[in-house]
Amino acid sequence: MSVPKLEDVAKLAQVSKTTVSRVLNRRGYLSKETIDKVNQAVKELNYHPNVVARQLYNNKTDLIGLLFPTVANPFFGELTANLEHYLYQKGYKVLIGNSINDPQKEADYLDQLLVKQVDGLIVGTHNQGISQYHNDNLPIVAIDRVMNQDIPIIASDNYAGGKLAVEHLLVQGARKIIHINGPQELATPAQKRRAAYEDVMHDHHLQPITYEVDFNISNTDKLKVFRQIFVEHPDVEAIFASNDLDAALIMQIARERRLRVPRDLLLVGYDGTQTVQSVWPQLTTVIQPIEFMAQKAVTVLQNRLHNQATQSEYLLPVQLHVGTTC
Amino acid sequence: MSVPKLEDVAKLAQVSKTTVSRVLNRRGYLSKETIDKVNQAVKELNYHPNVVARQLYNNKTDLIGLLFPTVANPFFGELTANLEHYLYQKGYKVLIGNSINDPQKEADYLDQLLVKQVDGLIVGTHNQGISQYHNDNLPIVAIDRVMNQDIPIIASDNYAGGKLAVEHLLVQGARKIIHINGPQELATPAQKRRAAYEDVMHDHHLQPITYEVDFNISNTDKLKVFRQIFVEHPDVEAIFASNDLDAALIMQIARERRLRVPRDLLLVGYDGTQTVQSVWPQLTTVIQPIEFMAQKAVTVLQNRLHNQATQSEYLLPVQLHVGTTC
Repeated sequence: MSVPKLEDVAKLAQVSKTTVSRVLNRRGYLSKETIDKVNQAVKELNYHPNVVARQLYNNKTDLIGLLFPTVANPFFGELTANLEHYLYQKGYKVLIGNSINDPQKEADYLDQLLVKQVDGLIVGTHNQGISQYHNDNLPIVAIDRVMNQDIPIIASDNYAGGKLAVEHLLVQGARKIIHINGPQELATPAQKRRAAYEDVMHDHHLQPITYEVDFNISNTDKLKVFRQIFVEHPDVEAIFASNDLDAALIMQIARERRLRVPRDLLLVGYDGTQTVQSVWPQLTTVIQPIEFMAQKAVTVLQNRLHNQATQSEYLLPVQLHVGTTC
Repeated sequence: MSVPKLEDVAKLAQVSKTTVSRVLNRRGYLSKETIDKVNQAVKELNYHPNVVARQLYNNKTDLIGLLFPTVANPFFGELTANLEHYLYQKGYKVLIGNSINDPQKEADYLDQLLVKQVDGLIVGTHNQGISQYHNDNLPIVAIDRVMNQDIPIIASDNYAGGKLAVEHLLVQGARKIIHINGPQELATPAQKRRAAYEDVMHDHHLQPITYEVDFNISNTDKLKVFRQIFVEHPDVEAIFASNDLDAALIMQIARERRLRVPRDLLLVGYDGTQTVQSVWPQLTTVIQPIEFMAQKAVTVLQNRLHNQATQSEYLLPVQLHVGTTC
C-alpha cells in the first residue's frame, strides 16, 4: 500500500483538499460534521500530515535556531540542554549551529532565519561583523553577547561576578593578582568581569594585569600564552580566570611548575557548570545561573516573536562557590 | 517596501511561477536565457526563496535529528558537536532532542521523522519500547544503543575497553574490584563492558560484583547507591565506573570517607571526554573515539539515505589513559 496523501483523505471524506487542509490547521469556520468526517478519514487511512506543507501554510516552522560556539564546551552544552527543555515546553523544536571559529558558518545559519526555516534565533557566538544582524526587528535574543542596539541581551551580572572573585582573592591575602579574559575588542558582557577586576584592583592601589586569549584557540595555544604569565610574573600570587576550563589549564601549568594550589598559588574560575562542579568541586568559581538564563532567554524570545516590548538587557544574579583553590 | 514574493520574480522575469521554481530548484530542462532572466530578477528584487516551500517541492528538508539523553553530559555534548560538524560538511543542518527520562518526548521527536520534518535520525537515547522504531527501513543510525535488528549501530569496542580497565586494575594489585554499570535489562552495547569485567574476573577466579544505576537518575540518587558500595563492601580495593561522571561521584565519596586515591582505593572511569580529561587529567579512564564515532555515524547514515547496504554494527577502537587514580 502506498503512503496516503491529502487527496486520499479529501476523497474519502468527500470534501475538497482545501477543507482537509483547513481542518488539519484549525483555520476558518468549519461545521462539526465536516471536522468529524475529515478526522475519521485521517484515522481510517492512517494519514500523517506532511509537516513541511503545514509549515508553508502557516508561514512558521516552530523551529528555533541556537547559535553557540560549541556544545562540546560544558557551559554551552548545559545552556543548550536547558534552552531545549524550555523551548520544547513552548512547542518549539531546536536547530543547533556550532560556529566556533567560523564566521561563514554563522552567517549561513543566520540565512536560515531570513529564508524562514527557523522562526527565531538565540545567539551566543563570538564571531564579529556578521552583516545579517544589521537587519532590524529580527526575532533574535543574545546570550552574553552584544549584537546590535536592537537585540536584547540576557547575561548574568558579570560585573558583580568579577567583583566577588577579586574581593575573595584579596581577603585570602593575595596582592599580585592576574586576570585572564577574551580580547578587549570583542564587545562581550564578559568584559565587565575585567572592568570589575580593574576597578577593585585600583581601589586597593594594586596594578591590574590582564592576559587576553581568544576563546576559540586550541588548548595547546592557550597553554603557550598562560605559561608566559609565570615567566613574565614569577611572583604571581593569584589568577582569576574568566572560565573554568582556562582555570583547569592554569592548574595543569601549576602542576608542571610544582606550585601547590592554594599554598603557592590561589585560583578562581568562572562559570560553575554542573560538569566541572561535579568533577572538580575543589575549584573556587563564580556560578552563572545557566538554567535561569535559558528560561529568561526563551521568555524574551517569545515576547519578541509576539511583537511585545523587551528590555535591552536582562541581568541575572551570580554566586561564588568557595572550594579549596582559594 | 513589502517582502518580494515568487510571483514578483515571475512578473519581472516575464516567465511563469513554475519556471521560477524550476530555476531555483535546478529542476528540468531550462534554456540559459531563462535561467539568466530569472536570476537577474531574483537579484534585482533581493528575493529570498522560502526554504520551506523548496523543502516541500523537493520532499526533503536537509535536516537530521539527533536524539541523545542530554548535551549537558560532556560525552553527548562532544558527540553532538562532532556530528554537527560532519553533517554540516555534507550540507545538513541539525535538529536536537534531549530525551533524558522522557520516552514521550523521544516518541514525539521520532514522529518528526515520520512526518518528514527531518530526513534522518542519529539516536543514542536510553528509553525503551518506543513503537516508532519498529517501522522498517527508517533512515536511522544508532550510537551505543540497540534499537531493532534493522538499525545499524556505531559503538566503540566496549568489550575491549572493559578488558583494558579491569586488567590494568589487576596489574596494579587490586583483587576486590567492583563495577558500576546501567541496568542489565537495557540492551546497550555498554553492557559489554560488564561482560568483559565479569569474564576477566572469572578468569582470575575472582568474584565479580556489579552495582546497577540508571543513567537518568539524579546525582543525589546515584550517590545513595554508590555509598552503599562502601557500606556493603568495606574491603573494596578498586572501582571500575562505566562513565567518568560516576567516577567523579565515587571520588566525592572517597573524600567523605577519607580514603586516598590511589593509596586506599583504585579508580578507573570510562569515556575520556576532552572536558573531563582537561579538568581531571589524573583520572585513569578508557577513551572512546568520539570524533571517529561521529564521522562513521554520518557516513553510515548517508549510505542509509541513499539506500546503500550497511553493516549491522561498526566497532571502533578504544584506548586506556593512565592517570594517577590507578
